[in-house]
Amino acid sequence: MSNSIGTVFRFTSFGESHGNAIGGVVDGCPSGIDIDETFVRTELNRRQPGVSPLSTQRCENDFVEFLSGIFEGKTTGTPIGFVIRNEQQRSQDYERLKNLYRPSHADYTCRQKYGVRDYRGGGRSSARETATRVVAGAIAKLVLKKIDVTIYACTSQVGPVKMKRPITDVDLSMIETNVVRCPDAETAQRMIDYINGTKDEGDSIGGTISCIIKNVPVGLGEPVFDKLQARLALACMSINAAHGFDYGAGFDGVGAKGSELNDAFYADENGRVRTKTNHSGGIQGGISNGEDVYFRVLFKPVATIAKKQTTVDVNNNVTTFNALGRHDPTVLPRAVPVVESMAAMTILDLCLMQNIRL
Amino acid sequence: MSNSIGTVFRFTSFGESHGNAIGGVVDGCPSGIDIDETFVRTELNRRQPGVSPLSTQRCENDFVEFLSGIFEGKTTGTPIGFVIRNEQQRSQDYERLKNLYRPSHADYTCRQKYGVRDYRGGGRSSARETATRVVAGAIAKLVLKKIDVTIYACTSQVGPVKMKRPITDVDLSMIETNVVRCPDAETAQRMIDYINGTKDEGDSIGGTISCIIKNVPVGLGEPVFDKLQARLALACMSINAAHGFDYGAGFDGVGAKGSELNDAFYADENGRVRTKTNHSGGIQGGISNGEDVYFRVLFKPVATIAKKQTTVDVNNNVTTFNALGRHDPTVLPRAVPVVESMAAMTILDLCLMQNIRL
Amino acid sequence: MSNSIGTVFRFTSFGESHGNAIGGVVDGCPSGIDIDETFVRTELNRRQPGVSPLSTQRCENDFVEFLSGIFEGKTTGTPIGFVIRNEQQRSQDYERLKNLYRPSHADYTCRQKYGVRDYRGGGRSSARETATRVVAGAIAKLVLKKIDVTIYACTSQVGPVKMKRPITDVDLSMIETNVVRCPDAETAQRMIDYINGTKDEGDSIGGTISCIIKNVPVGLGEPVFDKLQARLALACMSINAAHGFDYGAGFDGVGAKGSELNDAFYADENGRVRTKTNHSGGIQGGISNGEDVYFRVLFKPVATIAKKQTTVDVNNNVTTFNALGRHDPTVLPRAVPVVESMAAMTILDLCLMQNIRL
Amino acid sequence: MSNSIGTVFRFTSFGESHGNAIGGVVDGCPSGIDIDETFVRTELNRRQPGVSPLSTQRCENDFVEFLSGIFEGKTTGTPIGFVIRNEQQRSQDYERLKNLYRPSHADYTCRQKYGVRDYRGGGRSSARETATRVVAGAIAKLVLKKIDVTIYACTSQVGPVKMKRPITDVDLSMIETNVVRCPDAETAQRMIDYINGTKDEGDSIGGTISCIIKNVPVGLGEPVFDKLQARLALACMSINAAHGFDYGAGFDGVGAKGSELNDAFYADENGRVRTKTNHSGGIQGGISNGEDVYFRVLFKPVATIAKKQTTVDVNNNVTTFNALGRHDPTVLPRAVPVVESMAAMTILDLCLMQNIRL
Repeated sequence: MSNSIGTVFRFTSFGESHGNAIGGVVDGCPSGIDIDETFVRTELNRRQPGVSPLSTQRCENDFVEFLSGIFEGKTTGTPIGFVIRNEQQRSQDYERLKNLYRPSHADYTCRQKYGVRDYRGGGRSSARETATRVVAGAIAKLVLKKIDVTIYACTSQVGPVKMKRPITDVDLSMIETNVVRCPDAETAQRMIDYINGTKDEGDSIGGTISCIIKNVPVGLGEPVFDKLQARLALACMSINAAHGFDYGAGFDGVGAKGSELNDAFYADENGRVRTKTNHSGGIQGGISNGEDVYFRVLFKPVATIAKKQTTVDVNNNVTTFNALGRHDPTVLPRAVPVVESMAAMTILDLCLMQNIRL
Repeated sequence: MSNSIGTVFRFTSFGESHGNAIGGVVDGCPSGIDIDETFVRTELNRRQPGVSPLSTQRCENDFVEFLSGIFEGKTTGTPIGFVIRNEQQRSQDYERLKNLYRPSHADYTCRQKYGVRDYRGGGRSSARETATRVVAGAIAKLVLKKIDVTIYACTSQVGPVKMKRPITDVDLSMIETNVVRCPDAETAQRMIDYINGTKDEGDSIGGTISCIIKNVPVGLGEPVFDKLQARLALACMSINAAHGFDYGAGFDGVGAKGSELNDAFYADENGRVRTKTNHSGGIQGGISNGEDVYFRVLFKPVATIAKKQTTVDVNNNVTTFNALGRHDPTVLPRAVPVVESMAAMTILDLCLMQNIRL
Repeated sequence: MSNSIGTVFRFTSFGESHGNAIGGVVDGCPSGIDIDETFVRTELNRRQPGVSPLSTQRCENDFVEFLSGIFEGKTTGTPIGFVIRNEQQRSQDYERLKNLYRPSHADYTCRQKYGVRDYRGGGRSSARETATRVVAGAIAKLVLKKIDVTIYACTSQVGPVKMKRPITDVDLSMIETNVVRCPDAETAQRMIDYINGTKDEGDSIGGTISCIIKNVPVGLGEPVFDKLQARLALACMSINAAHGFDYGAGFDGVGAKGSELNDAFYADENGRVRTKTNHSGGIQGGISNGEDVYFRVLFKPVATIAKKQTTVDVNNNVTTFNALGRHDPTVLPRAVPVVESMAAMTILDLCLMQNIRL
Repeated sequence: MSNSIGTVFRFTSFGESHGNAIGGVVDGCPSGIDIDETFVRTELNRRQPGVSPLSTQRCENDFVEFLSGIFEGKTTGTPIGFVIRNEQQRSQDYERLKNLYRPSHADYTCRQKYGVRDYRGGGRSSARETATRVVAGAIAKLVLKKIDVTIYACTSQVGPVKMKRPITDVDLSMIETNVVRCPDAETAQRMIDYINGTKDEGDSIGGTISCIIKNVPVGLGEPVFDKLQARLALACMSINAAHGFDYGAGFDGVGAKGSELNDAFYADENGRVRTKTNHSGGIQGGISNGEDVYFRVLFKPVATIAKKQTTVDVNNNVTTFNALGRHDPTVLPRAVPVVESMAAMTILDLCLMQNIRL
């Protein structure tokens, strides 16, 4: 189970950051879907380091090769296998990590869990794994396009710098106009400044990514254990460094009362039942009601920092550790397409479970 | 899938609030566990309405009957079936709900999803369903007792009234000393006052429940999709009215930097690797590190309020609705054992997946 | 997993032969299906002992109570919980089994697996468990009725007495006209005589049940691991005492060559692609082709016999055992509705996975 | 689900016969297992065509590349991704198949199921897919080696030519001494002659493969739906061309009575409970009893034959088809390692579910 997610649209991933390759298998994708490989590549580029001045200059230059499940440009209904080769395998850089437990990394827990550990660059726990999610998410987006479901995520908070309005009330077309992926230009600039300041300190910072899904069919999600919000939370909390999730009014609405948060129903001019407000985030009783679904994911600061930290090695000896080279001071802008991908896979899976006609 | 949760320790629930019974099947419970039925009953009582002055006076008087899987007081390894009869079935009270979509309830979404709907009291979407979770959670707690894992949840915020210290820094033995289940007596009183004020207004209020799990074995959770935090989020976000989840430093720590949140390792006197701080909430790389696991669940105000609200009926006619009778102004104190139950089932399932010796 | 079967239409069962009750939960049943309780009861009666002169006179008199998921006679899409009480609990009869391993029963293996054992009458391993399958199967049949899928099983062999023609070539309306459920009257009489002779010897006998499914939609089953025949085999081999499975030409066709067994395609008058013969049993490449699906299940003789047998007790002491009272000399006629039920659940599950419109 | 099998040890496969590659992901493999790549390659060679005079001379020359999950020669507990490139892609050979439904192939059913079809050489339905099973099975065998579980399969029947003794009573070390993989030299020669005769006729022939698993731990399998025999049947009936399955005495024992087939218990000199006979095939009540588990799989003749056959094309026009080039007259000797692989994966998965110490 551990490396698969989804029920009907089911994604299985594999790969370590410094092994031969990372990759995955997308099972349950409907047949007859046009796979626009340029779109997949564009999505991968959005996640890639070295692209933004905010991120590390390491050039991953990911190239995804599809191995199966696509014939003459269309999906066939059979599993889509793909690989992304790991080009840079300078694992000698990682020799000094071999016997060390980096603070707030998975080094200690993985070693305890498995007995052995591929210590090269985080191994399976590296954020590099999320590249495969973006490939699978891009495929899910291409399927959802057939029913006009669109997904937008943006950076909504960096440390103390918070976007002034909720994602329901911003110009989504502005998201990709700046490197931090915040649709509000002025806030974006303050975020960039904050990140650059943090970088100069050799430190790191977290924040939130907000995501909105438009045109969600009514009826997705199950009334009890597979509530739509529960499935979104499972998907998003599985992203590296994710530490929190809320949807609709969320934690910011904790002080409001029922009379303020209830969404009154009305029938629109087409006879469709709508809600006047959308504090419920498009979900009632665990099931989508046709309004926009929106949620936030909290990301902690990346654990890898240049500052010297105290830790122990595998023999319990006290030692110190500070990261060498260049490291991202934050995961945020790069995690935007990852959040979208997890949302896309979740929504598509629930559409297929609900037999929504594509 | 929709009505089951867990992989090895797997709980399937059934039942509507006004049908014959609610109940469930616990599959994958280890054999040889003493089932203390008094303990199960006590747990159920903690969730029951009519017990606290804060909750409705409706007396559910739940009685759980075990049908299988227990022989001479011990589990046999076979599935544990159980039922709780629905004693009060005054479904005539619900006749007026038949054609109405109550705001922020599941009435509209369920009808759209299924075409038909058991409109009596929320049907499957009623919070009554959580009673079965408490039974399954009580069984999970009895299994976890064998390895000294203990779970405590408390009400940590009601509307604007917030517990002053985090759950990692309170006297857990005080939780059950007041009706609102907040271990800090002074805050508890302010919460009670706030809830009573809300009740008098005919309104409702949300808040947060915090939960801490002590003595968690190292190694629970998977590095990628079944991260411990993702599984806890799935479990908790499936509870009625849950709108958010965070763990460790969580949303409150969004302004802090990596150097402030990283948990330094040290070896304790027994040679066990520990962390000096626990901002990670006992989880690193998705895997438990042996420190206390702690998290919060955000609950929105209950949708049922006495105030008059505008809505539509199934024929799109505008109408108004206000709840009659007595209704809980908040789910919080009663949801405390439900959160514990979801945590218990999740931790036990991951223990069994990890082959932790019981 | 162990007590659930199916993916979308998913049945979970519970219960021991001498506990309080047996029962189950049917999850994933489409909404809006009329549940004809008389039909369900009739199906249960077909499985019940004491009805036929060939079976034990023990009167189980099973009564199924539905607890949820049905409202005003129709399914609601929520899980259908049900129980069948165990009325006769003369567990003192079983005291002498407490420390004994009955030959070819599950006594030894269950004790080794679980450490403890409900020794009363086979416990979870009793064939009584199959009553719950018949209830779930009856529900599946009621759903399949909407798309005219019909399922017939019959006793096709008892020990050396074999039905002369395959199930594809008999008058299915004759199956229920005799107690052994063989549509060929003359063979039926020879089977009955053979069973009665076996009973007089205090012995037991096995045989085969053949099953045919008519009007199967094209496209059920998956090309690789969830082939239609693999899912049918999983379902049928999970029935107590099942020892073999084949479909289409099966083991009897082992001597035939490809040119004899290949099914030539043609287009019928309606332009539908059909096959001239059906040695493939309606399945090609793991996927239904629209022809009748037919298969056989082999059942071994029941392990409980009146003859004295040597065995050991839990302390490894040699002892003897012979069953007291009346026991079925064969499972065959009673297993007919069980085979049909497993087929119905499997076909319905694959229909739902394939989004066949009901 | 469709392209994955197993619960804890879970194998997902992908790939078409004439796409870029076939491959798979093995998830849930225990860490610390030595992966002997030579052994894996040897296993693959056993399945490969062109090796035996009985099979096609097409040289597949499969090379498996491991992409992840193995570090310094040992498994790490993370998913093992692997690919086998498809070297020969002479898909022009298949142009004439594009619009044709070959008799008893998956051409028609796949097209109906998916709308589109990769018509090159059977696509996903090609037996080439079984190469990935052999890789996963080889890994499973390497894990099982740690607890001395060994698995042997052999060709036990080819058309009318049947091995004289059951697999429980042959010299297993003789299996690989002849090309047909039958341990009885004289029968092997008759099988070879029969296959060659069939080949000369341009026809094909089926038969059975028998498999025996030695040293199976007591306690594998679940009492109800995941019975050991049901899981073995699921696994084996998912192999291309498999048409039947039985275990223990099986179909050949259909005439025998309970008193003849019951296996009497005794305690051996070490105090271990054993059975004097093993008609139960090492399984009682769905659970392994520690005796050898043995079963048979029936394979139909391959559908591809040189003889001219009548069929229709996608426009319902009547046409004829005969296979060109060289084709295997039987799958049998090559399917031997495939059957072993499915057995290995099933047994290992159940060992892990049962927490057998490796």
